[in-house]
Amino acid sequence: MKKIAFILFDNFQILDVTGPAQVFSSANELLEAPVYDIHYLSTKGGACRATCGLTVETEPLTDLGAYDSLIISGGEGSRAAAKDQNLIQQITSQAPGIRRMVSICTGAFILSAAGLLDNKRVTTHWAYADRLQNSNPRLLVEPDALYIRQGNITTSAGVTAGMDLALFLIEEDVGKDIAREVARHMVIFYRRPGGQSQFSAFQMTPSAEDDPFHDLCREIIAHPNRDHRISRLAEEVAMTERTFIRRFSRATGLSPGKFVEKARIDCARRALEETSLNLDQIAHDSGFHSPEVLRRTFHRHMAISPKEYRQRFGG
Amino acid sequence: MKKIAFILFDNFQILDVTGPAQVFSSANELLEAPVYDIHYLSTKGGACRATCGLTVETEPLTDLGAYDSLIISGGEGSRAAAKDQNLIQQITSQAPGIRRMVSICTGAFILSAAGLLDNKRVTTHWAYADRLQNSNPRLLVEPDALYIRQGNITTSAGVTAGMDLALFLIEEDVGKDIAREVARHMVIFYRRPGGQSQFSAFQMTPSAEDDPFHDLCREIIAHPNRDHRISRLAEEVAMTERTFIRRFSRATGLSPGKFVEKARIDCARRALEETSLNLDQIAHDSGFHSPEVLRRTFHRHMAISPKEYRQRFGG
Repeated sequence: MKKIAFILFDNFQILDVTGPAQVFSSANELLEAPVYDIHYLSTKGGACRATCGLTVETEPLTDLGAYDSLIISGGEGSRAAAKDQNLIQQITSQAPGIRRMVSICTGAFILSAAGLLDNKRVTTHWAYADRLQNSNPRLLVEPDALYIRQGNITTSAGVTAGMDLALFLIEEDVGKDIAREVARHMVIFYRRPGGQSQFSAFQMTPSAEDDPFHDLCREIIAHPNRDHRISRLAEEVAMTERTFIRRFSRATGLSPGKFVEKARIDCARRALEETSLNLDQIAHDSGFHSPEVLRRTFHRHMAISPKEYRQRFGG
Repeated sequence: MKKIAFILFDNFQILDVTGPAQVFSSANELLEAPVYDIHYLSTKGGACRATCGLTVETEPLTDLGAYDSLIISGGEGSRAAAKDQNLIQQITSQAPGIRRMVSICTGAFILSAAGLLDNKRVTTHWAYADRLQNSNPRLLVEPDALYIRQGNITTSAGVTAGMDLALFLIEEDVGKDIAREVARHMVIFYRRPGGQSQFSAFQMTPSAEDDPFHDLCREIIAHPNRDHRISRLAEEVAMTERTFIRRFSRATGLSPGKFVEKARIDCARRALEETSLNLDQIAHDSGFHSPEVLRRTFHRHMAISPKEYRQRFGG
């Protein structure tokens, strides 16, 4: 039997735990003999409250070294948990002996606090990717991946991506057939098409009101199909092109070209979600030279086509 | 505030509850003022154990009439719950006053026991669709749908389909924008592409060993690309075509033509999942006249293309 521990705390995200737990539990049911012995732990044991209001029972967290896999959940409470020195110290000291250390969603902040993610490619919920990166410059945060394995550490994207990751772990332990059968029974995809980016909302935060680029960014977002060549943009803020590129990139975290591209993609996304306009019209309204350029750029950002995107998020 | 009650029992399926609960709870977080007041009930109250081993706290089930929506979970324990006269009686008596009665997964067996599904189009987990239909001939069970609304009753397909359904209920209550935003945050599709059939495993159970069609069914399944025209099949079991069609259909629940088609589709599905053969080869091996016939038949069964199927379940 492989002992699996889920680490919980108050205000954990319930699906970070119950999603993967059900994946392991369904594998047990489908196998001739169960493989996983699942435990739910918290630093003090007893009742833990999830953000959805459900209260679950936990065992006190001791002897983490006895587990095969440790799964750290995310959720609003993960910020407090990342500052719980007792928890962090136990994770740090036991990690080298544990075959698999896993974080779901914002559980990555806890693994980061335990120093386990330094110099590693990692992921987290799309809405927290920037925050995770800013909190620790030694991480290599990849906001598109559904999960990333690096040595004995695996991090996953937001919430339900924990199920994609758990299927991958089961495939590793007992093979593809069982993993596929578990997916069928839970009515989830064995391989989710496309990455996490397709779910992410537009996170472009134009700088504060007094920033020289604030109005410029708003204008690009409001009218992505106008002429936003660098020469024109630089002229508008009365800078040389070189200065403009340098200062704009520092202020927004994106080059002017990338910023305009993101604004255009976002405009196209909203049109695909909310209208039934055809691709010609959407390309025109969002500032792409042709439907073909829109299609190519969209695919590069989302790893799926505009048509697939509309199917999943439109209507 | 809309009061929502989840009805739990021992051996409930955890995701039937936590999936929709998190959808409602995320909507509360995104709205300016929370809309949903969520309760977890069981007949006696106190600890309820899910099949994945997690124990959750519940309130005792009283005064169901005070709720806006009642959500009945499924899971292994639903069979016992469907025989709990106290529970069934409470559901039956309060149902008319409740705005929305909802079942997730095998929770449909409980609504059926309460007499609420008679003469209604309903759905449940794909693996239990036949059983639900056989248990109550007055139901119109549709095994492909992800969820079906009929009057104040809504039933959903297996496990994670409860989240698709909950998004639909939120859209109804507070609009598309919030529903879409909830889906993004939970990293799930706002509209899941295709129906439940794409997840279902081959459920064709050839009759018992002493049945005259046992060997014939096995042969069709083992060699779907041989000649299985009715004239040849009837000859093999030494019956007239008319007698053969009548007796085969009664024994297997499918006409010979449908049985052969299902066996061929299943062969193609497995090839798409497990191999990288091209569609020409797969059509040939599984007994379709051409890749185009395979593509058309596949789409009719699964509501998605062979290519999309491979993307989700292959590899």
